[in-house]
Amino acid sequence: METNDIPDLERRMQFLTEVEKLKTVYRQNMTVGSERHENSAEHSWHVALMALVLGGHAGDSGLDLLTVITMLLIHDIVEIDAGDTFLYDDEANVDRNEREERAAARLFGLLPDEQRDTMVALWREFEARSTPEARFAAALDGMQPVLNHYCTDGTGVRKYRIPAARVIEKKRYIADASPELWRYTEDIIRRSTEKGLYTDE
Amino acid sequence: METNDIPDLERRMQFLTEVEKLKTVYRQNMTVGSERHENSAEHSWHVALMALVLGGHAGDSGLDLLTVITMLLIHDIVEIDAGDTFLYDDEANVDRNEREERAAARLFGLLPDEQRDTMVALWREFEARSTPEARFAAALDGMQPVLNHYCTDGTGVRKYRIPAARVIEKKRYIADASPELWRYTEDIIRRSTEKGLYTDE
Repeated sequence: METNDIPDLERRMQFLTEVEKLKTVYRQNMTVGSERHENSAEHSWHVALMALVLGGHAGDSGLDLLTVITMLLIHDIVEIDAGDTFLYDDEANVDRNEREERAAARLFGLLPDEQRDTMVALWREFEARSTPEARFAAALDGMQPVLNHYCTDGTGVRKYRIPAARVIEKKRYIADASPELWRYTEDIIRRSTEKGLYTDE
Repeated sequence: METNDIPDLERRMQFLTEVEKLKTVYRQNMTVGSERHENSAEHSWHVALMALVLGGHAGDSGLDLLTVITMLLIHDIVEIDAGDTFLYDDEANVDRNEREERAAARLFGLLPDEQRDTMVALWREFEARSTPEARFAAALDGMQPVLNHYCTDGTGVRKYRIPAARVIEKKRYIADASPELWRYTEDIIRRSTEKGLYTDE
């Protein structure tokens, strides 16, 4: 059967069943209580909720919040095929984009063509941080691990001995989306460094 | 310090840190591959994504999708205090609403007052299914376990020996939000019963 012969609802359901797998893609973050690593599905929920709650702190007050939340709900789906790439793993980041583009083609390709195109475009917009919505979504995605490390006492991250200066360098783009949230994040990084979660070399 | 003296951003961050705990509230559903029970945070992500993908199948074409998604992102937060109540556990459902109202007061009460009121009102609207948005959100929340049982071969649910007629009775409200999605769900229930996930007594 040609893919185009499958009814749209059936294609959407195949996609929604396939993305179950995001619940078993594990990240470096730990869940609170440190009982296990955080997975990318619950992380996606957390950052989408952050957008809802923190929307008023965006530097640009005219943001389309539905677009921000859509980006955050879909931003990690490519990890089902491409895996989670740790921000501080330079080697793994070399071919990250290529692996993720292939994953986006397969996974969003399960959807009806028009919806596939919309999703792929939004995912690329998020990755490129090319609009105010994408920059705000990316800022929240960048903040969440910092908050998570702090509230789980860095169980997942201490072992990497990441210099605080490197965290700041990697996260500084948050300021483009919200100077206020960047000040808050910088303060958490400082307090985390005092607790030994990052190094101050 | 009076709660009202805490800056709004700090209150929002306290809320966003507290809701980390939803990642450790476990449901009867299993994750794909059945490696562990599904938690309410990743479930919330999945139903919010369903709203994005299936929005066009709602019976009411004028739905405000941002409201639907907001409801789905927050609908289970009360479980942090009140626990997940299994739909088919009649005893546990007797005082569910009372436990959840207390939980909503404490958890949403971490937010600035205006945002707390908005969230509590949306949560109650979802629970009461009193608007087209709430009915569609509730329909997706009702569909997701049926799809999950089917794609995880019922590992979490077979042991309860739930009659298919009871599943249909509990889920029939989906038809109010979308006749098309209800037909699809009924078909999955039928196929699940054939596989022995529910009983046909």
